[in-house]
Amino acid sequence: MAPSKSVLIVGGVAGGMSCATRLRRLDEDAKITVVDKGPYVSYANCGIPYALGGVVENEGKLHVQTVDKLKTWFNIDARTNTELKSIQREEKTATIRDLSSGEESSVPYDKLVLALGAEAFVPPIEGVNSEHVFTLQTIPNLQEIRAMISKKGCRRAVVVGGGFIGLEAAENLRRLGIEVTIFEFDQHVFPVVDPEIGEVVDEELRKNGVNLKLNARVTKITSASDSESGLVFAEGQEPVPADLVIMAVGIRSRIAIPKEAGLELGRTGVSVNEFMQTSDPDIYAVGDMVETLNLVTGQPAQTALAGPANRQGRLVADHISGKGIKYRGNLGVSVCQVFGKTVGIVGLSTRNLDRLGIKHEYVTVHPPQHAEWYPGASPLTVKLAFEMPSGKILGAQVVGKEGVDKRIDVFATAMRAGMTVEDLEHLELAYAPPYGAAKDAVNMAGFAASNIVRGDVKLVHAGEFARGTRNLEDFQIIDVRGAEEYNQGHLKGAKNIPLVNLRERADEVKRGVPTIVHCKSGYRSYVGYRILAQKGVDVYNLDGGYKSVLDGGYVTIQEA
Amino acid sequence: MAPSKSVLIVGGVAGGMSCATRLRRLDEDAKITVVDKGPYVSYANCGIPYALGGVVENEGKLHVQTVDKLKTWFNIDARTNTELKSIQREEKTATIRDLSSGEESSVPYDKLVLALGAEAFVPPIEGVNSEHVFTLQTIPNLQEIRAMISKKGCRRAVVVGGGFIGLEAAENLRRLGIEVTIFEFDQHVFPVVDPEIGEVVDEELRKNGVNLKLNARVTKITSASDSESGLVFAEGQEPVPADLVIMAVGIRSRIAIPKEAGLELGRTGVSVNEFMQTSDPDIYAVGDMVETLNLVTGQPAQTALAGPANRQGRLVADHISGKGIKYRGNLGVSVCQVFGKTVGIVGLSTRNLDRLGIKHEYVTVHPPQHAEWYPGASPLTVKLAFEMPSGKILGAQVVGKEGVDKRIDVFATAMRAGMTVEDLEHLELAYAPPYGAAKDAVNMAGFAASNIVRGDVKLVHAGEFARGTRNLEDFQIIDVRGAEEYNQGHLKGAKNIPLVNLRERADEVKRGVPTIVHCKSGYRSYVGYRILAQKGVDVYNLDGGYKSVLDGGYVTIQEA
Repeated sequence: MAPSKSVLIVGGVAGGMSCATRLRRLDEDAKITVVDKGPYVSYANCGIPYALGGVVENEGKLHVQTVDKLKTWFNIDARTNTELKSIQREEKTATIRDLSSGEESSVPYDKLVLALGAEAFVPPIEGVNSEHVFTLQTIPNLQEIRAMISKKGCRRAVVVGGGFIGLEAAENLRRLGIEVTIFEFDQHVFPVVDPEIGEVVDEELRKNGVNLKLNARVTKITSASDSESGLVFAEGQEPVPADLVIMAVGIRSRIAIPKEAGLELGRTGVSVNEFMQTSDPDIYAVGDMVETLNLVTGQPAQTALAGPANRQGRLVADHISGKGIKYRGNLGVSVCQVFGKTVGIVGLSTRNLDRLGIKHEYVTVHPPQHAEWYPGASPLTVKLAFEMPSGKILGAQVVGKEGVDKRIDVFATAMRAGMTVEDLEHLELAYAPPYGAAKDAVNMAGFAASNIVRGDVKLVHAGEFARGTRNLEDFQIIDVRGAEEYNQGHLKGAKNIPLVNLRERADEVKRGVPTIVHCKSGYRSYVGYRILAQKGVDVYNLDGGYKSVLDGGYVTIQEA
Repeated sequence: MAPSKSVLIVGGVAGGMSCATRLRRLDEDAKITVVDKGPYVSYANCGIPYALGGVVENEGKLHVQTVDKLKTWFNIDARTNTELKSIQREEKTATIRDLSSGEESSVPYDKLVLALGAEAFVPPIEGVNSEHVFTLQTIPNLQEIRAMISKKGCRRAVVVGGGFIGLEAAENLRRLGIEVTIFEFDQHVFPVVDPEIGEVVDEELRKNGVNLKLNARVTKITSASDSESGLVFAEGQEPVPADLVIMAVGIRSRIAIPKEAGLELGRTGVSVNEFMQTSDPDIYAVGDMVETLNLVTGQPAQTALAGPANRQGRLVADHISGKGIKYRGNLGVSVCQVFGKTVGIVGLSTRNLDRLGIKHEYVTVHPPQHAEWYPGASPLTVKLAFEMPSGKILGAQVVGKEGVDKRIDVFATAMRAGMTVEDLEHLELAYAPPYGAAKDAVNMAGFAASNIVRGDVKLVHAGEFARGTRNLEDFQIIDVRGAEEYNQGHLKGAKNIPLVNLRERADEVKRGVPTIVHCKSGYRSYVGYRILAQKGVDVYNLDGGYKSVLDGGYVTIQEA
């Protein structure tokens, strides 16, 4: 029998801990050591914003494992307050430092697993090191913020960054009755999604009393005193007073030690192969610090999410134990609750597809989350991007009140399986009135997209007019809504022919002119489109209808 | 140009109506006639139980289309109260009868689409035609029941049949404050699922005041008078008084006219090809009346669900218009809300797999619907059946408070894609604390099942002992729960070695004897399993743990 392996795991949260416990289940004899520079191992850092807001009442619940349980259940030697200082690859030793005693020691390893995570990025802004400025990533961060609030009070807070940490922080600060302003550099919050999706979230934030500063680069933060709030300055904005500032502008992989050790690095993190091995086959790396294959772009990228980190940790344990299971890359799946709305994405937004030069088409539909006649029905916005002419799914975004996470998971499973939009038409999904519809939102998106793939419908998008890649003036516009809806506001130059009259009045529609037909959400205009197309009109449906024009804030092309 | 087609569609609900409206969108010139024997077209019959209970307050909301809207939007000639009497295939005509006037007429067709649906089955029980006995399938049924309740009052109701119509009826009658008894022929309600899943629903019904009579075949119903309730008799049961009886024991395809017309029939409905053509290529059939391929069994079967009916209707319109899109068969996906619980299934239960002689393995896991530390976490029961050694998924059942429909949809998408249980391990699903977990319930089921496929774990199931295919006496039983849990009740003959002491006390476990290790839900015992297996014990994990023993009602093998 071979002598038992020594495995040193650095980082005791998601990826590192999954690796440690799985490894023990596979190998009763391995010597497993886990070190973490923080005071805890294996806690749910995703819960920290909710602990701040009191949604999670007892932060003790966030501790998934303890040093003691790791010992008794798993025979794992876990050491907190212990930091990795350097790696001596040739000797296969790592130097670690006990932060309490200051003592350094050298630990030999057969296999080293790096799960160092990523650092909350703190941009070099004047005043960013003031006492009232924090990040919100760790339990110590949480404790510091709480201590400050209870000592000095907090009436007004600023959150810098509108990504999911920023949004969760803002919502939870509101729960504490604090006035909140979010500064976001992009034109809308949750910038991983497209504008018309993100703007639904903007609206929800405003409705819940959050002050939004968009397109705003923070330039300076002044200190708060006991009697006076500090100020947060941004270019072209009035300064905003703040007793507390939370920086949530993103994260950076912890690559300093891997770099020093000569491990290969990518653009955004440590490079690994499909078994999560770094360029040194005895050193693995997992989680927020690494780059893995993005299945949509085909490029390596950082995917800083708990799910992938956990899976990677498991696979490292498998590989160390002689099982050759490959990591299959990431689609990138995010979801975020923002007060009464949920927003999610899998794959890429159309904006990011454009930025990367990936050609695509997309459709927008607004089906309800469940049967329209069942109480509580409310529309989702589903935006589905796909490759032409293959119909391969490239990204799906969903925003709405309920049922968002379910549709994201179905899209994510479909994308993982390499499905096309035509496959979505055929999906057989669970239907009972409280949960879905005989034609589920995912099917509806599939229908609309497949119509494009098969050439049954041509589309124009509101965004094309907003960006100036098409001009509304080049089109005859037929608004097939009812007269009353039309009179409440319509596109400039639009002629109103309600769908019910379209057949008899079809002669009023000019031939030989590119023609947009639209209604409120796209369904009546699809029926109208098919009538006009079969009568020889050169017709385009307006994707997502008038609702998308309004959601996207393209109000300049509207008159009341 | 070819002369425009005459298409006659018989049946104006899900399948027929999807066909009619899609056909118009594809073909502006077709002459489209829809006849329905009822007083309405295109209503959501799935809403009827909810309209009874007042959840859907206005039954008018259930009307998806009206005769008038079909005319003005779609130029469809829709005729209600009009019944198909016979088909003259050689002349390509159908004889229809106007039920108001009694007049019969002959309608020529180029294509005939049958969407006749299925009839609520009324078994030949003595007294079943009494005035207070109803089915609950159509709006007229609903109106009759309401009229009876408001005229005579109703204190006590009996529902015969515990499938989803019966369950929805029972819940909605309870909403009206009526005492409800369900008679179910099987050993638990919702018999499409396995006992330990169905029994969770049984418990929820009882908790909400529904009286359950299981293994009960109703033999006689006596009439209610103005002063006295009728009685419902079942073999070996006390008779139950009832002012109202709802028969919900299943449905039968309407095959009389197709049969008379000489169309080919299967065991449970009309036979169709992948384009939904019957044995006469000019006659299509869709929905509850047909048999389509079940993808798990590989056999044709009736799938009486709204989603498949709608899709089939669309595909008929496609085929009539010259598009050759094939119907891809059914997995069978059902979900049902029962008071505070939801139960769902995709594919087959293990009981039905057994009945059909389809070899399989299965695992049971009890993960929460979202992060355990986020408020409102509650365990799901997920039972996943799969083929060995391929790992191909054959069925998934889920029951719990929240998030059931989501997991069913993910499993359904995975099954449609032909995924294996190992693919489930790698699924990247949306995680934020309110919605899921870094390792989602679907991933957890995938982990447990893959451990079996890869031979890392051997299982025994509580059901095997209940059925007597294994004997508990043949095993050494190690209960790795804490002493306190053990003392509250444990398996007969079980020895308690808490997981935390298992390594030091491993010598107390006999070698060379088949050994069951178990805990409450299966996780601690999995860790214990791996410890003992690596120490040379011939060990089996108890699938789903002690919880599955309790859920399955296998209490005979337990002592307090």
